Amino acid sequence: MEDLIASYAAAIDEDRLEDWPNLFVERGKYVIATKDDFDRGLPFGVIYADSRAMLIDRVTALRQANIYEPHGYRHIVGPIRVVASGDGIADARSNFMVVRIMRDGATMLFATGEYRDRIDTASEPFRFVERLVVTDSHKFDTLLALPL
Amino acid sequence: MEDLIASYAAAIDEDRLEDWPNLFVERGKYVIATKDDFDRGLPFGVIYADSRAMLIDRVTALRQANIYEPHGYRHIVGPIRVVASGDGIADARSNFMVVRIMRDGATMLFATGEYRDRIDTASEPFRFVERLVVTDSHKFDTLLALPL
Amino acid sequence: MEDLIASYAAAIDEDRLEDWPNLFVERGKYVIATKDDFDRGLPFGVIYADSRAMLIDRVTALRQANIYEPHGYRHIVGPIRVVASGDGIADARSNFMVVRIMRDGATMLFATGEYRDRIDTASEPFRFVERLVVTDSHKFDTLLALPL
Repeated sequence: MEDLIASYAAAIDEDRLEDWPNLFVERGKYVIATKDDFDRGLPFGVIYADSRAMLIDRVTALRQANIYEPHGYRHIVGPIRVVASGDGIADARSNFMVVRIMRDGATMLFATGEYRDRIDTASEPFRFVERLVVTDSHKFDTLLALPL
Repeated sequence: MEDLIASYAAAIDEDRLEDWPNLFVERGKYVIATKDDFDRGLPFGVIYADSRAMLIDRVTALRQANIYEPHGYRHIVGPIRVVASGDGIADARSNFMVVRIMRDGATMLFATGEYRDRIDTASEPFRFVERLVVTDSHKFDTLLALPL
Repeated sequence: MEDLIASYAAAIDEDRLEDWPNLFVERGKYVIATKDDFDRGLPFGVIYADSRAMLIDRVTALRQANIYEPHGYRHIVGPIRVVASGDGIADARSNFMVVRIMRDGATMLFATGEYRDRIDTASEPFRFVERLVVTDSHKFDTLLALPL
Protein backbone atom coordinates (compact mmCIF):
# COMPACT_ATOMS: atom_id res chain seq x y z
CA MET A 1 0.00 0.00 0.00
CA GLU A 2 2.87 2.31 0.78
CA ASP A 3 4.18 1.61 -2.70
CA LEU A 4 0.84 2.42 -4.34
CA ILE A 5 0.49 5.64 -2.37
CA ALA A 6 4.06 6.68 -3.13
CA SER A 7 3.63 5.79 -6.82
CA TYR A 8 0.56 7.98 -7.00
CA ALA A 9 2.50 10.95 -5.66
CA ALA A 10 5.43 10.25 -7.96
CA ALA A 11 3.28 10.01 -11.11
CA ILE A 12 2.00 13.51 -10.48
CA ASP A 13 5.18 15.07 -9.13
CA GLU A 14 7.23 13.71 -12.03
CA ASP A 15 4.68 14.88 -14.58
CA ARG A 16 3.82 11.32 -15.62
CA LEU A 17 0.10 12.06 -15.50
CA GLU A 18 -0.57 9.28 -18.03
CA ASP A 19 0.44 6.74 -15.37
CA TRP A 20 -2.00 8.14 -12.86
CA PRO A 21 -5.33 6.60 -14.05
CA ASN A 22 -3.73 3.18 -14.14
CA LEU A 23 -3.36 3.27 -10.37
CA PHE A 24 -7.16 2.98 -10.14
CA VAL A 25 -9.35 -0.04 -10.90
CA GLU A 26 -11.50 0.37 -13.98
CA ARG A 27 -14.52 1.55 -11.99
CA GLY A 28 -12.33 3.46 -9.59
CA LYS A 29 -13.61 6.58 -7.93
CA TYR A 30 -11.62 9.75 -7.45
CA VAL A 31 -13.09 12.63 -5.49
CA ILE A 32 -11.66 15.85 -4.13
CA ALA A 33 -13.84 17.39 -1.44
CA THR A 34 -13.23 20.04 1.18
CA LYS A 35 -13.37 18.93 4.81
CA ASP A 36 -16.41 21.13 5.39
CA ASP A 37 -18.32 19.54 2.53
CA PHE A 38 -17.18 16.07 3.48
CA ASP A 39 -18.28 16.57 7.09
CA ARG A 40 -21.66 17.74 5.88
CA GLY A 41 -22.03 14.63 3.75
CA LEU A 42 -21.92 16.39 0.40
CA PRO A 43 -20.68 13.63 -1.87
CA PHE A 44 -19.55 15.24 -5.07
CA GLY A 45 -16.77 17.57 -4.16
CA VAL A 46 -14.72 19.88 -6.29
CA ILE A 47 -13.73 17.07 -8.61
CA TYR A 48 -15.62 13.86 -9.14
CA ALA A 49 -14.77 10.88 -11.33
CA ASP A 50 -16.05 7.36 -11.04
CA SER A 51 -14.13 5.50 -13.70
CA ARG A 52 -10.62 5.20 -14.99
CA ALA A 53 -11.88 6.46 -18.34
CA MET A 54 -12.89 9.75 -16.74
CA LEU A 55 -9.43 10.09 -15.26
CA ILE A 56 -7.88 9.45 -18.66
CA ASP A 57 -10.15 12.14 -20.11
CA ARG A 58 -9.00 14.50 -17.43
CA VAL A 59 -5.35 13.89 -18.23
CA THR A 60 -6.02 14.39 -21.94
CA ALA A 61 -7.77 17.65 -21.21
CA LEU A 62 -4.90 18.83 -19.04
CA ARG A 63 -2.38 17.95 -21.74
CA GLN A 64 -4.30 19.43 -24.65
CA ALA A 65 -5.86 22.50 -23.18
CA ASN A 66 -2.71 23.45 -21.38
CA ILE A 67 -4.59 26.37 -19.96
CA TYR A 68 -2.96 26.29 -16.60
CA GLU A 69 0.03 28.31 -15.61
CA PRO A 70 3.00 25.95 -15.62
CA HIS A 71 3.55 24.49 -12.20
CA GLY A 72 4.46 21.27 -10.50
CA TYR A 73 3.57 19.64 -7.22
CA ARG A 74 5.51 17.86 -4.57
CA HIS A 75 3.53 15.49 -2.36
CA ILE A 76 4.64 14.56 1.13
CA VAL A 77 2.57 11.78 2.63
CA GLY A 78 2.66 10.67 6.25
CA PRO A 79 2.31 7.20 7.77
CA ILE A 80 -0.56 5.03 6.58
CA ARG A 81 -3.25 3.73 8.92
CA VAL A 82 -5.29 0.73 7.86
CA VAL A 83 -8.66 1.25 9.50
CA ALA A 84 -10.45 -1.78 8.07
CA SER A 85 -9.75 -4.66 5.75
CA GLY A 86 -11.50 -7.70 4.38
CA ASP A 87 -12.74 -9.22 1.12
CA GLY A 88 -9.62 -8.08 -0.64
CA ILE A 89 -10.24 -4.42 0.18
CA ALA A 90 -8.30 -2.33 2.65
CA ASP A 91 -9.47 1.02 3.97
CA ALA A 92 -6.48 3.22 4.57
CA ARG A 93 -5.92 6.76 5.77
CA SER A 94 -2.94 9.01 5.36
CA ASN A 95 -2.22 12.70 5.73
CA PHE A 96 -0.76 14.64 2.86
CA MET A 97 0.76 17.99 2.12
CA VAL A 98 1.22 19.33 -1.39
CA VAL A 99 3.70 22.03 -2.25
CA ARG A 100 3.29 23.87 -5.52
CA ILE A 101 6.30 24.99 -7.50
CA MET A 102 5.79 27.63 -10.15
CA ARG A 103 7.91 27.89 -13.27
CA ASP A 104 9.90 30.76 -11.79
CA GLY A 105 10.86 28.65 -8.80
CA ALA A 106 8.44 30.16 -6.30
CA THR A 107 7.33 27.50 -3.86
CA MET A 108 4.25 27.50 -1.67
CA LEU A 109 2.30 25.22 0.60
CA PHE A 110 -0.65 24.52 -1.65
CA ALA A 111 -2.90 22.01 0.08
CA THR A 112 -3.09 19.72 3.08
CA GLY A 113 -5.58 17.08 4.00
CA GLU A 114 -6.34 13.41 4.30
CA TYR A 115 -6.43 10.61 1.79
CA ARG A 116 -9.31 8.25 2.51
CA ASP A 117 -8.56 5.23 0.35
CA ARG A 118 -10.22 1.96 -0.47
CA ILE A 119 -7.55 -0.24 -2.00
CA ASP A 120 -7.96 -3.46 -3.94
CA THR A 121 -5.45 -5.78 -2.30
CA ALA A 122 -6.80 -8.95 -3.90
CA SER A 123 -4.35 -8.91 -6.79
CA GLU A 124 -1.08 -7.23 -7.62
CA PRO A 125 -0.41 -4.49 -8.37
CA PHE A 126 -2.70 -2.99 -5.73
CA ARG A 127 -5.03 -0.34 -7.11
CA PHE A 128 -7.38 2.31 -5.76
CA VAL A 129 -11.05 1.35 -5.72
CA GLU A 130 -11.65 4.78 -4.29
CA ARG A 131 -9.47 7.70 -3.37
CA LEU A 132 -11.27 10.46 -1.56
CA VAL A 133 -9.07 13.52 -1.13
CA VAL A 134 -10.36 15.60 1.77
CA THR A 135 -8.73 19.01 1.81
CA ASP A 136 -8.44 21.03 5.01
CA SER A 137 -8.96 24.36 3.39
CA HIS A 138 -11.71 25.47 1.06
CA LYS A 139 -9.36 28.06 -0.33
CA PHE A 140 -7.57 26.88 -3.38
CA ASP A 141 -5.30 29.47 -4.73
CA THR A 142 -6.54 30.17 -8.23
CA LEU A 143 -7.18 27.00 -10.18
CA LEU A 144 -7.08 23.39 -9.14
CA ALA A 145 -5.47 21.83 -12.15
CA LEU A 146 -3.26 18.87 -11.34
CA PRO A 147 -4.67 16.01 -9.28
CA LEU A 148 -3.97 16.22 -5.55
CA MET B 1 4.30 1.96 16.22
CA GLU B 2 3.53 3.60 12.90
CA ASP B 3 -0.13 2.94 13.64
CA LEU B 4 0.07 4.53 17.09
CA ILE B 5 1.88 7.58 15.75
CA ALA B 6 -0.56 7.97 12.87
CA SER B 7 -3.53 7.49 15.20
CA TYR B 8 -2.23 10.24 17.45
CA ALA B 9 -2.08 12.66 14.52
CA ALA B 10 -5.51 11.59 13.29
CA ALA B 11 -7.17 12.06 16.69
CA ILE B 12 -6.07 15.68 16.73
CA ASP B 13 -6.50 16.45 13.06
CA GLU B 14 -10.01 14.98 13.00
CA ASP B 15 -10.99 16.85 16.15
CA ARG B 16 -11.41 13.64 18.15
CA LEU B 17 -9.48 15.07 21.10
CA GLU B 18 -11.29 12.73 23.49
CA ASP B 19 -9.44 9.80 21.86
CA TRP B 20 -6.08 11.42 22.43
CA PRO B 21 -5.43 10.67 26.15
CA ASN B 22 -6.23 7.03 25.56
CA LEU B 23 -3.12 6.72 23.39
CA PHE B 24 -1.06 7.14 26.58
CA VAL B 25 -0.57 4.68 29.43
CA GLU B 26 -2.21 5.78 32.68
CA ARG B 27 0.98 7.35 34.04
CA GLY B 28 1.95 8.59 30.60
CA LYS B 29 3.97 11.74 30.22
CA TYR B 30 3.35 14.40 27.60
CA VAL B 31 5.70 17.33 27.31
CA ILE B 32 6.13 20.09 24.73
CA ALA B 33 9.52 21.78 24.97
CA THR B 34 11.42 24.03 22.61
CA LYS B 35 14.65 22.64 21.21
CA ASP B 36 16.63 25.34 23.04
CA ASP B 37 15.13 24.39 26.39
CA PHE B 38 15.46 20.70 25.67
CA ASP B 39 19.13 21.11 24.75
CA ARG B 40 19.74 23.01 27.98
CA GLY B 41 18.13 20.20 29.97
CA LEU B 42 15.10 22.18 31.12
CA PRO B 43 12.59 19.44 31.73
CA PHE B 44 9.20 21.09 32.01
CA GLY B 45 8.56 22.75 28.74
CA VAL B 46 5.66 24.81 27.54
CA ILE B 47 3.20 22.07 28.41
CA TYR B 48 3.76 19.35 30.96
CA ALA B 49 1.49 16.47 31.93
CA ASP B 50 2.43 13.24 33.62
CA SER B 51 -0.78 11.29 33.69
CA ARG B 52 -3.63 10.41 31.40
CA ALA B 53 -5.95 12.20 33.82
CA MET B 54 -4.12 15.47 33.18
CA LEU B 55 -4.55 14.99 29.46
CA ILE B 56 -8.26 14.37 29.94
CA ASP B 57 -8.47 17.58 32.00
CA ARG B 58 -6.75 19.43 29.23
CA VAL B 59 -9.24 18.18 26.66
CA THR B 60 -12.14 19.12 28.92
CA ALA B 61 -10.69 22.60 29.35
CA LEU B 62 -10.23 22.99 25.61
CA ARG B 63 -13.81 21.88 24.96
CA GLN B 64 -15.42 23.97 27.68
CA ALA B 65 -13.44 27.15 27.64
CA ASN B 66 -13.42 27.32 23.90
CA ILE B 67 -11.30 30.39 24.16
CA TYR B 68 -9.19 29.69 21.16
CA GLU B 69 -9.86 30.98 17.72
CA PRO B 70 -11.30 28.08 15.73
CA HIS B 71 -8.59 26.24 13.90
CA GLY B 72 -7.48 22.78 13.01
CA TYR B 73 -4.16 21.07 12.53
CA ARG B 74 -2.75 18.71 9.97
CA HIS B 75 0.21 16.61 11.07
CA ILE B 76 2.71 15.18 8.65
CA VAL B 77 5.10 12.73 10.24
CA GLY B 78 8.23 11.32 8.64
CA PRO B 79 9.78 7.86 8.94
CA ILE B 80 10.19 6.41 12.42
CA ARG B 81 13.57 5.46 13.86
CA VAL B 82 13.73 3.01 16.74
CA VAL B 83 16.83 4.04 18.68
CA ALA B 84 16.52 1.55 21.54
CA SER B 85 14.21 -1.21 22.67
CA GLY B 86 13.96 -3.73 25.46
CA ASP B 87 11.77 -4.70 28.42
CA GLY B 88 8.67 -4.02 26.40
CA ILE B 89 9.60 -0.40 25.76
CA ALA B 90 10.75 1.07 22.46
CA ASP B 91 12.41 4.45 22.11
CA ALA B 92 11.40 5.97 18.80
CA ARG B 93 12.10 9.21 17.00
CA SER B 94 10.24 10.87 14.19
CA ASN B 95 10.12 14.30 12.62
CA PHE B 96 6.86 16.17 12.38
CA MET B 97 5.41 19.20 10.73
CA VAL B 98 2.10 20.73 11.76
CA VAL B 99 0.08 22.95 9.50
CA ARG B 100 -2.61 25.10 11.04
CA ILE B 101 -5.83 25.79 9.18
CA MET B 102 -7.95 28.70 10.35
CA ARG B 103 -11.72 28.80 9.99
CA ASP B 104 -11.48 31.11 7.00
CA GLY B 105 -9.30 28.60 5.16
CA ALA B 106 -5.95 30.31 5.70
CA THR B 107 -3.22 27.71 6.01
CA MET B 108 0.19 28.15 7.57
CA LEU B 109 3.16 26.11 8.63
CA PHE B 110 2.68 26.20 12.39
CA ALA B 111 5.34 24.03 13.97
CA THR B 112 8.09 21.57 13.17
CA GLY B 113 10.18 19.38 15.39
CA GLU B 114 10.88 15.92 16.66
CA TYR B 115 8.80 13.41 18.56
CA ARG B 116 10.90 11.60 21.15
CA ASP B 117 8.72 8.70 22.20
CA ARG B 118 8.88 5.89 24.70
CA ILE B 119 6.30 3.36 23.64
CA ASP B 120 4.87 0.47 25.61
CA THR B 121 5.11 -2.42 23.18
CA ALA B 122 4.47 -5.12 25.78
CA SER B 123 0.74 -5.31 25.11
CA GLU B 124 -1.61 -4.24 22.35
CA PRO B 125 -2.66 -1.63 21.57
CA PHE B 126 0.72 0.05 21.91
CA ARG B 127 0.60 3.22 24.00
CA PHE B 128 2.88 6.15 24.78
CA VAL B 129 4.74 5.92 28.07
CA GLU B 130 6.20 9.27 27.15
CA ARG B 131 5.88 11.62 24.23
CA LEU B 132 8.28 14.51 24.31
CA VAL B 133 7.52 17.03 21.58
CA VAL B 134 10.62 19.06 20.83
CA THR B 135 9.78 22.08 18.72
CA ASP B 136 12.36 23.72 16.50
CA SER B 137 11.16 27.22 17.00
CA HIS B 138 10.46 29.04 20.22
CA LYS B 139 8.05 31.24 18.35
CA PHE B 140 4.54 29.99 18.56
CA ASP B 141 2.24 32.23 16.72
CA THR B 142 -0.26 33.42 19.32
CA LEU B 143 -1.57 30.63 21.47
CA LEU B 144 -0.65 26.99 21.64
CA ALA B 145 -4.03 25.40 22.11
CA LEU B 146 -4.36 22.01 20.47
CA PRO B 147 -1.79 19.33 21.27
CA LEU B 148 1.08 19.06 18.84
CA MET C 1 16.27 1.61 4.24
CA GLU C 2 13.73 3.65 6.17
CA ASP C 3 16.17 3.66 9.06
CA LEU C 4 19.05 4.88 6.87
CA ILE C 5 16.93 7.62 5.35
CA ALA C 6 15.62 8.72 8.73
CA SER C 7 19.13 8.63 10.23
CA TYR C 8 20.38 10.87 7.45
CA ALA C 9 17.71 13.47 8.23
CA ALA C 10 18.36 13.18 11.97
CA ALA C 11 22.12 13.67 11.63
CA ILE C 12 21.54 16.99 9.90
CA ASP C 13 18.53 18.15 11.90
CA GLU C 14 20.23 17.40 15.22
CA ASP C 15 23.43 19.13 14.10
CA ARG C 16 25.43 15.92 14.19
CA LEU C 17 27.02 16.69 10.81
CA GLU C 18 30.04 14.53 11.68
CA ASP C 19 27.79 11.46 11.49
CA TRP C 20 26.58 12.34 8.03
CA PRO C 21 29.52 11.17 5.84
CA ASN C 22 29.48 7.81 7.57
CA LEU C 23 26.07 7.09 6.05
CA PHE C 24 27.81 6.83 2.67
CA VAL C 25 30.11 4.10 1.39
CA GLU C 26 33.71 5.19 0.95
CA ARG C 27 33.28 5.98 -2.75
CA GLY C 28 29.79 7.30 -2.14
CA LYS C 29 28.38 10.03 -4.33
CA TYR C 30 26.38 12.98 -3.10
CA VAL C 31 24.89 15.41 -5.56
CA ILE C 32 22.39 18.24 -5.26
CA ALA C 33 20.89 19.23 -8.60
CA THR C 34 17.87 21.26 -9.55
CA LYS C 35 15.08 19.41 -11.31
CA ASP C 36 15.63 21.49 -14.45
CA ASP C 37 19.31 20.56 -14.60
CA PHE C 38 18.61 16.95 -13.76
CA ASP C 39 15.99 16.71 -16.52
CA ARG C 40 18.48 18.19 -19.00
CA GLY C 41 21.07 15.60 -18.00
CA LEU C 42 23.50 18.03 -16.43
CA PRO C 43 25.35 15.80 -14.03
CA PHE C 44 27.23 18.04 -11.63
CA GLY C 45 24.63 20.05 -9.84
CA VAL C 46 24.96 22.72 -7.23
CA ILE C 47 26.98 20.45 -4.99
CA TYR C 48 28.99 17.45 -6.12
CA ALA C 49 31.01 14.99 -4.07
CA ASP C 50 32.08 11.50 -5.02
CA SER C 51 33.76 10.21 -1.91
CA ARG C 52 33.20 10.11 1.81
CA ALA C 53 36.42 12.09 2.21
CA MET C 54 34.89 14.99 0.27
CA LEU C 55 31.89 14.92 2.55
CA ILE C 56 34.13 15.00 5.60
CA ASP C 57 35.95 17.98 4.10
CA ARG C 58 32.65 19.71 3.62
CA VAL C 59 31.66 19.18 7.23
CA THR C 60 35.04 20.48 8.38
CA ALA C 61 34.63 23.55 6.22
CA LEU C 62 31.15 24.18 7.57
CA ARG C 63 32.37 23.85 11.15
CA GLN C 64 35.48 25.97 10.73
CA ALA C 65 34.40 28.69 8.40
CA ASN C 66 31.15 29.17 10.18
CA ILE C 67 30.26 31.70 7.57
CA TYR C 68 26.64 30.89 7.40
CA GLU C 69 23.96 32.59 9.41
CA PRO C 70 22.99 30.21 12.21
CA HIS C 71 20.10 28.05 11.17
CA GLY C 72 18.84 24.53 11.40
CA TYR C 73 16.80 22.25 9.19
CA ARG C 74 13.95 19.92 9.76
CA HIS C 75 13.49 17.19 7.14
CA ILE C 76 10.18 15.51 6.50
CA VAL C 77 10.46 12.52 4.20
CA GLY C 78 7.56 10.66 2.62
CA PRO C 79 7.14 6.97 1.88
CA ILE C 80 9.99 5.16 0.15
CA ARG C 81 9.58 3.45 -3.22
CA VAL C 82 12.05 0.79 -4.22
CA VAL C 83 12.21 1.02 -8.01
CA ALA C 84 14.89 -1.61 -8.61
CA SER C 85 17.08 -3.94 -6.63
CA GLY C 86 19.69 -6.59 -7.24
CA ASP C 87 23.37 -7.36 -6.64
CA GLY C 88 23.10 -5.94 -3.17
CA ILE C 89 22.00 -2.53 -4.41
CA ALA C 90 18.54 -1.03 -4.08
CA ASP C 91 17.34 1.98 -6.02
CA ALA C 92 14.94 3.94 -3.89
CA ARG C 93 12.96 7.13 -4.28
CA SER C 94 11.41 9.36 -1.68
CA ASN C 95 10.02 12.87 -1.54
CA PHE C 96 11.37 15.35 0.95
CA MET C 97 10.58 18.74 2.35
CA VAL C 98 13.07 20.78 4.33
CA VAL C 99 12.05 23.55 6.67
CA ARG C 100 14.67 26.04 7.75
CA ILE C 101 14.64 27.49 11.25
CA MET C 102 16.63 30.65 11.84
CA ARG C 103 18.19 31.52 15.18
CA ASP C 104 15.41 33.97 15.97
CA GLY C 105 12.81 31.24 15.53
CA ALA C 106 11.58 32.23 12.09
CA THR C 107 10.56 29.14 10.15
CA MET C 108 10.22 28.76 6.41
CA LEU C 109 9.71 26.09 3.80
CA PHE C 110 13.21 25.96 2.38
CA ALA C 111 13.34 23.18 -0.20
CA THR C 112 11.33 20.31 -1.62
CA GLY C 113 12.29 17.59 -4.01
CA GLU C 114 13.12 13.97 -4.51
CA TYR C 115 15.84 11.74 -3.12
CA ARG C 116 17.11 9.35 -5.78
CA ASP C 117 19.14 6.84 -3.84
CA ARG C 118 21.30 3.85 -4.60
CA ILE C 119 21.70 1.97 -1.34
CA ASP C 120 24.20 -0.75 -0.50
CA THR C 121 22.03 -3.43 1.09
CA ALA C 122 24.68 -6.15 0.95
CA SER C 123 25.91 -5.55 4.48
CA GLU C 124 24.66 -3.82 7.58
CA PRO C 125 24.45 -0.99 8.30
CA PHE C 126 23.05 -0.04 4.92
CA ARG C 127 24.82 2.90 3.33
CA PHE C 128 24.33 5.25 0.41
CA VAL C 129 26.28 4.38 -2.72
CA GLU C 130 24.67 7.46 -4.23
CA ARG C 131 22.27 10.07 -3.02
CA LEU C 132 21.08 12.42 -5.72
CA VAL C 133 19.03 15.26 -4.26
CA VAL C 134 16.81 16.71 -6.97
CA THR C 135 15.32 20.01 -5.86
CA ASP C 136 12.07 21.30 -7.31
CA SER C 137 13.04 24.91 -7.27
CA HIS C 138 16.16 26.56 -8.62
CA LYS C 139 15.67 29.32 -6.12
CA PHE C 140 17.62 28.78 -2.99
CA ASP C 141 17.17 31.58 -0.59
CA THR C 142 20.64 32.99 0.01
CA LEU C 143 23.19 30.29 0.60
CA LEU C 144 22.93 26.54 0.49
CA ALA C 145 25.00 25.62 3.49
CA LEU C 146 23.81 22.53 5.29
CA PRO C 147 23.29 19.34 3.30
CA LEU C 148 19.75 18.73 2.10
